[in-house]
Amino acid sequence: MAEGELLPQPDIEEIEMVKVLHALGDPTRLHLFGVFARSDVQCDCSARRLGLEHLHKSTISHHMRILREAGVTSTRVVGRNRYVELRRDDLESRFPGLVEVLLTSTDG
Amino acid sequence: MAEGELLPQPDIEEIEMVKVLHALGDPTRLHLFGVFARSDVQCDCSARRLGLEHLHKSTISHHMRILREAGVTSTRVVGRNRYVELRRDDLESRFPGLVEVLLTSTDG
Repeated sequence: MAEGELLPQPDIEEIEMVKVLHALGDPTRLHLFGVFARSDVQCDCSARRLGLEHLHKSTISHHMRILREAGVTSTRVVGRNRYVELRRDDLESRFPGLVEVLLTSTDG
Repeated sequence: MAEGELLPQPDIEEIEMVKVLHALGDPTRLHLFGVFARSDVQCDCSARRLGLEHLHKSTISHHMRILREAGVTSTRVVGRNRYVELRRDDLESRFPGLVEVLLTSTDG
């Protein structure tokens, strides 16, 4: 885990299924979920790395914020960089099997 | 299965994960999902039976339509009545494990 400031996110017991589903019920955000779920390491947020070259930076930030506020991802700010990772263990603890089901069903 | 007209719904192979997540990413619709998932028989659509006495009939219809168009439910019209059921087998075939994960995680 990189050092730096962790942006605001819900505690694990505050993560709500309906907010997670809302966050993932959007094509761009479901794509990002797949990107972060399949990254062994934390991702930087460049549009190219995220496969979102067609989107404006502010649009990407908007989607990132919704994922983070729903409890799907964590964002750490280190200097000018942001590192995002899926809260896989937290989601698994809160909603067992959800991440796996989503990944299996969106695999290609 | 009651006779009558089946309202338009996507074929099984047209059901998309992102649309299912969008449909369920709303408190009222996630509640309805639980109602239909736990009903052994098809439900009529009275607000009382659905636990939605606080909502206007047109609002309930709106939510029902989104669930149906996403492929989550089937609606059959028989005379003046509508019978709704979860497309449990279709969802299980398309996204194995999803219904169970959602039910387990929203159980109270």
